[in-house]
Amino acid sequence: MKLIQFGPYGEEKPGLLTEDGVRKDLSGKFAKYDREFFQQDGLGKLTELKDSLDSLPTVAEDVRWGAPIARPGKVICIGLNYADHAAESGMAVPEEPIIFFKGSNTVVGPYDEIQIPRKSEKTDWEVELGIVIGKDARYLESESQAASFIAGYCISHDVSERHFQLERGGQWVKGKSCDTFNPVGPFLSTCDQIADVDNLAMELDVNGERMQTGNTKTMVFKPNYLVYYLSQFMTLEAGDLISTGTPPGVGLGMKPPKFLKASDEIRLSIESLGEQRQTCVNA
Amino acid sequence: MKLIQFGPYGEEKPGLLTEDGVRKDLSGKFAKYDREFFQQDGLGKLTELKDSLDSLPTVAEDVRWGAPIARPGKVICIGLNYADHAAESGMAVPEEPIIFFKGSNTVVGPYDEIQIPRKSEKTDWEVELGIVIGKDARYLESESQAASFIAGYCISHDVSERHFQLERGGQWVKGKSCDTFNPVGPFLSTCDQIADVDNLAMELDVNGERMQTGNTKTMVFKPNYLVYYLSQFMTLEAGDLISTGTPPGVGLGMKPPKFLKASDEIRLSIESLGEQRQTCVNA
Repeated sequence: MKLIQFGPYGEEKPGLLTEDGVRKDLSGKFAKYDREFFQQDGLGKLTELKDSLDSLPTVAEDVRWGAPIARPGKVICIGLNYADHAAESGMAVPEEPIIFFKGSNTVVGPYDEIQIPRKSEKTDWEVELGIVIGKDARYLESESQAASFIAGYCISHDVSERHFQLERGGQWVKGKSCDTFNPVGPFLSTCDQIADVDNLAMELDVNGERMQTGNTKTMVFKPNYLVYYLSQFMTLEAGDLISTGTPPGVGLGMKPPKFLKASDEIRLSIESLGEQRQTCVNA
Repeated sequence: MKLIQFGPYGEEKPGLLTEDGVRKDLSGKFAKYDREFFQQDGLGKLTELKDSLDSLPTVAEDVRWGAPIARPGKVICIGLNYADHAAESGMAVPEEPIIFFKGSNTVVGPYDEIQIPRKSEKTDWEVELGIVIGKDARYLESESQAASFIAGYCISHDVSERHFQLERGGQWVKGKSCDTFNPVGPFLSTCDQIADVDNLAMELDVNGERMQTGNTKTMVFKPNYLVYYLSQFMTLEAGDLISTGTPPGVGLGMKPPKFLKASDEIRLSIESLGEQRQTCVNA
């Protein structure tokens, strides 16, 4: 199944995307795709509805696409998690996953505008595979156990301001949590829809020029391991989002570096997970 | 006013603490002290009720004290923000505030147990002044403007696992976001109750032995400045919590270092903001 949300920012309603690309309105059945939905087997209930989608209302094409999940309790990100990106940066692959958080109010829809923050010098892009947690998870016993705690996968755009992140003192969060810095979607794909999550092509263009080309096969710490690992430190709650790191080609790594400015157009995609498009504007 | 919440974890209801120390039940008037409450002038509505508290139900003494606010959208922490703590650590005072996040699911009540995480070697304490945001704030123009965006102050205990934070790779969040790592309360004091927020004595004892002694007067970046500063990077939302850093005396800085273990008893207080007590248990 492909879960979507639609409607104005902050008032999104839940739906499903059919195989024909039509958005069906499920707001009569569920409030939103939040922790409670996932924790109370919402995905199981959705499966029961799957064959009667025709009878549900269709969402008009001009209605905004929201992020496919309600605002997460936590947005957890993994740093330097692609071997080829680490090599490109001349950095060693980390021995353990590097974790940081984004503010969960950074989550917006897949086609929303990205706001370049005031005084930004170095706003950068990062296409990432997003994991959505399907059940509260704490102290999981193994990587294989982790699989059943994943609701599905989506594109997560981890927009980053490098000057704020790296040159304004302290921790990365300063450059990671600006408003609109995390477009998510267009849909959340349940795990059964993905043939091999460890082999998904990824790409990102700015103004039609290819910047990032990658594949989840060069990911250092794989999704199941990450869920297992994170659960050793904190309870992962249903509906939490994990962004799993970015492949080569971010603006900071170019010679000379390239960064985003107002009116730039970004397109990013991950195999089986659709495509996002954003226009940059000044905050 | 002194805002409190009471009841089982995750189902807390709102109330007020009277000058006689009695908890009054306001669940008939408000749902909880969350973003919507603060954003829609909940504090103004509370003020109108202040003189009719006698007619409201009293909360029984054995009912659990929750954190005085609903789960925040963000828990933002400031690192190395006390001049005497920086000096003690042999570190320079930062040029700009150091920011990091805790998972907002770490927030618990002021008398709840602190869980020592599995495989923890270095669980440590940090008494901190907490700021609660009263109105959504973005790109504030000045430090003085920031004052009207603060709902009030409370004790925030920023429990930290130093091994996870500093020796397991990457960012601090790994040692800051373990379950139960942020007892908050016992109450949220509105600003008018505090004579001078820049001159509040702080202390923390473990098993009756004084560990931290400090005063907000040695804080490097003061509350109004922090709110102004943070709003340049991200929207601060009503109900967000900012923990403003800790004074000297954390376990990591002792020679030899001291850390928490199961059955340890912690007591911490800040002048005008009451006292917390926690017992440590193994997770």
